[in-house]
Amino acid sequence: MDLNSDLGEGFGAWRMGDDEAMLDIVTSANIACGFHAGDPSVMRRVCAMAAERGVAIGAHVGYRDLAGFGRRALDIAPDDLADDVLYQIGALDAFARAAGSRVSYVKPHGALYNTAAVDPEQAAAVVEALRRYDPGLGLLCLPDSEMLREASKAGVSAFAEAFADRAYTAEGRLVSRKQPGAVLHDADEVATRAVGMATGAGVVTADGGKLEMRPDSLCVHGDTPGAVELARRIRDGLTSAGVKLGAFAG
Amino acid sequence: MDLNSDLGEGFGAWRMGDDEAMLDIVTSANIACGFHAGDPSVMRRVCAMAAERGVAIGAHVGYRDLAGFGRRALDIAPDDLADDVLYQIGALDAFARAAGSRVSYVKPHGALYNTAAVDPEQAAAVVEALRRYDPGLGLLCLPDSEMLREASKAGVSAFAEAFADRAYTAEGRLVSRKQPGAVLHDADEVATRAVGMATGAGVVTADGGKLEMRPDSLCVHGDTPGAVELARRIRDGLTSAGVKLGAFAG
Amino acid sequence: MDLNSDLGEGFGAWRMGDDEAMLDIVTSANIACGFHAGDPSVMRRVCAMAAERGVAIGAHVGYRDLAGFGRRALDIAPDDLADDVLYQIGALDAFARAAGSRVSYVKPHGALYNTAAVDPEQAAAVVEALRRYDPGLGLLCLPDSEMLREASKAGVSAFAEAFADRAYTAEGRLVSRKQPGAVLHDADEVATRAVGMATGAGVVTADGGKLEMRPDSLCVHGDTPGAVELARRIRDGLTSAGVKLGAFAG
Amino acid sequence: MDLNSDLGEGFGAWRMGDDEAMLDIVTSANIACGFHAGDPSVMRRVCAMAAERGVAIGAHVGYRDLAGFGRRALDIAPDDLADDVLYQIGALDAFARAAGSRVSYVKPHGALYNTAAVDPEQAAAVVEALRRYDPGLGLLCLPDSEMLREASKAGVSAFAEAFADRAYTAEGRLVSRKQPGAVLHDADEVATRAVGMATGAGVVTADGGKLEMRPDSLCVHGDTPGAVELARRIRDGLTSAGVKLGAFAG
Repeated sequence: MDLNSDLGEGFGAWRMGDDEAMLDIVTSANIACGFHAGDPSVMRRVCAMAAERGVAIGAHVGYRDLAGFGRRALDIAPDDLADDVLYQIGALDAFARAAGSRVSYVKPHGALYNTAAVDPEQAAAVVEALRRYDPGLGLLCLPDSEMLREASKAGVSAFAEAFADRAYTAEGRLVSRKQPGAVLHDADEVATRAVGMATGAGVVTADGGKLEMRPDSLCVHGDTPGAVELARRIRDGLTSAGVKLGAFAG
Repeated sequence: MDLNSDLGEGFGAWRMGDDEAMLDIVTSANIACGFHAGDPSVMRRVCAMAAERGVAIGAHVGYRDLAGFGRRALDIAPDDLADDVLYQIGALDAFARAAGSRVSYVKPHGALYNTAAVDPEQAAAVVEALRRYDPGLGLLCLPDSEMLREASKAGVSAFAEAFADRAYTAEGRLVSRKQPGAVLHDADEVATRAVGMATGAGVVTADGGKLEMRPDSLCVHGDTPGAVELARRIRDGLTSAGVKLGAFAG
Repeated sequence: MDLNSDLGEGFGAWRMGDDEAMLDIVTSANIACGFHAGDPSVMRRVCAMAAERGVAIGAHVGYRDLAGFGRRALDIAPDDLADDVLYQIGALDAFARAAGSRVSYVKPHGALYNTAAVDPEQAAAVVEALRRYDPGLGLLCLPDSEMLREASKAGVSAFAEAFADRAYTAEGRLVSRKQPGAVLHDADEVATRAVGMATGAGVVTADGGKLEMRPDSLCVHGDTPGAVELARRIRDGLTSAGVKLGAFAG
Repeated sequence: MDLNSDLGEGFGAWRMGDDEAMLDIVTSANIACGFHAGDPSVMRRVCAMAAERGVAIGAHVGYRDLAGFGRRALDIAPDDLADDVLYQIGALDAFARAAGSRVSYVKPHGALYNTAAVDPEQAAAVVEALRRYDPGLGLLCLPDSEMLREASKAGVSAFAEAFADRAYTAEGRLVSRKQPGAVLHDADEVATRAVGMATGAGVVTADGGKLEMRPDSLCVHGDTPGAVELARRIRDGLTSAGVKLGAFAG
């Protein structure tokens, strides 16, 4: 099982999260590429640290919106979006290669992640950019999403991720963050759910039923208080349960 | 002899110069990479047009200064500069490769070009970024400059450019633009000088002497009124004189 | 009758339109404030030229999106939008006052104009920013729009504009630019329509009927080929018909 | 005696320092205006908190360099610098006024502060922008600096600041940060020096002599670990010594 996290989200004088600590925990690093966060020096440092640890490097591509951290939907033309994504992949790969590694997958960030999950045009633009750069790159996204479908159409390998600290509906969808109980905070419970996700045992849904899922990766957060500790608990839970950790890509 | 020009200098809704016309004239295109000019869609279009015509693609890297078009010196730490340059090379190469070509050289732009010509630290940072990306890339710069020296130290191939429409001193330096007569406007004279530069016959200096030079490339401008016509006259003058045109790199 | 135009849309080394020529034609200048176009030096120059000619200065506020020229809808939180708009009004007013004039109205630009016409939350955010700066400022917008309604609720004076070169439906709505005939190019026809709009005589609709309208301002474009000439024809047509020109605000 | 601090230095999702805690300590807030740090929403919040507490609001103007946090010297033309500074003052004043206060002084930030201290052209540009906005604004700067001289020439009131946690030479200059002992960390010692500066008793210089100074304001830092606590100790030291605190401007 793969553990991925959004890293390299500082910019200039501003820091966010503890990249180094998280790189000791995850197997795949979604590294910001300068459009919603990340600057060239952050990218260099995080790529170097990831490469040293054998952590897979993913291009965490976003809308060009530093002020909004890429969290605001932008009604960009698909062709322009494909260009913006290709630019970001190429820029990050320069640092990955300089560190002796390479970009092995792409994961859209924030509002682009959410929009491309349901909008076939934006999804296709992301896949097209990936394909133009290297059809062998993986795409990390939501299961049952337009991104997954567009990747499949284009012959691109897509990988589905799940969230151990989020509640799921019986249909396998994330409970909206606006609902109470959408985000789980108990570390033991979250670690247990991670094991259920990784082993195929499944997780309890918001309405008390059982949901089976077979994600390719579990996403852990690195930028909130206690995030590093929770991520470590998830990793420890998985290894204690005999789950072998390793990057899905690369 | 190579003819190079700064292209892809539009941004968003703003256009600058006639990229397509210039690509029919030059053999090397210095393409802006988004820091001082150029956006991903401009980069895609210009790379595609260059690749179609067999024009060599160079990364025209600049300071991160859209508002100043990269023409203002920025006292950036060398490590940060190397990161900014590497980012730009990687981003442009993504479009070059998607177009079936690749970045084959680097040319600093504007204030970075001028600073790195005389400042060994900034020169070394540019060379270091180039080397990290691909030690086989060429560096296009001023003759007798710190860039040339740093490239030589690092084992990077540097190429010197000359300007057919600029007056030179007896020592082979450009007459400052603040001096009268620094820029030549007569197309016949400029074309004649280009031939003198390309054939080794030399050019007349500002003080009436003779200067021999052996540049690897001639820089022609694309963004001023009459620029395309002047560039065409230079090209025609060279081919009429039997000078064979071709990219220095790639 | 007022004639307004979008001006000051250059940025850094990039120019757009002929601000000076347009300022000899219009009575109100919608001046970009740096978020979608315009930089401080452009703002100073255009404010100074407008003040010299007694042309009213309006804050042409947009989304923070230089790369997209403010033409892409951005799903920004209303509170953040109000802050972005207030920032832009204050910045422009500094130049207007330094030139001996002042910002007398606000007109949203591009995608913000379109979104705020139909989205009550974004409309209210624009009105709130205006009101916080100075409740005496006017708001220039589409007739029958959410902006007009929100302005009215807040006690802010709103002014409706019409487009002499655009086709209208029988209901008084603009024919979509995707339809053939949406934009009129015949200068005589456009000038005649401007007079019909300004005098209350009305205009012929797309389906051949008659539409009466009483706009407070006519918008003329300044950034397309022939734009200055068309604007001059409209102005001449209006003055020939005895329509007195003057700013709606200030 | 006035206590000033650089505040509002977050941007988008990124935070820096504890603005609210510092606003309970200082009498003047240097608030970033969006060019090197600060976004419109940060500016609104910090202006509102400052106004509530009666803390004077200063425009902390910087170079347009988010990636470098305004800490890198930029060789900008003085006219363009004056425009950039005027833009920032106007933008911040919109929020100050909306909060029932107003900008009462200007303090350049980072590399602009350092450059304008020694470069008469950049100093004059800052003073000119201030004067255009409102000649009644104060200028907060280094003693014996070009800014002070240019302000004096232009009839602008300038105020000199000192740093309680920095070592001074016998000539009254700051010991370079590259020297050991340039920054003092002992809270008691720093508080004692603050009292010496505020009462005219003077401080011990780096070479053990005595330096008398009569600053108009003491600068306290808010963005380093322990900064809030140190600032509080300085304030408590001053009030215990009977020094009355109050803004120099407004």
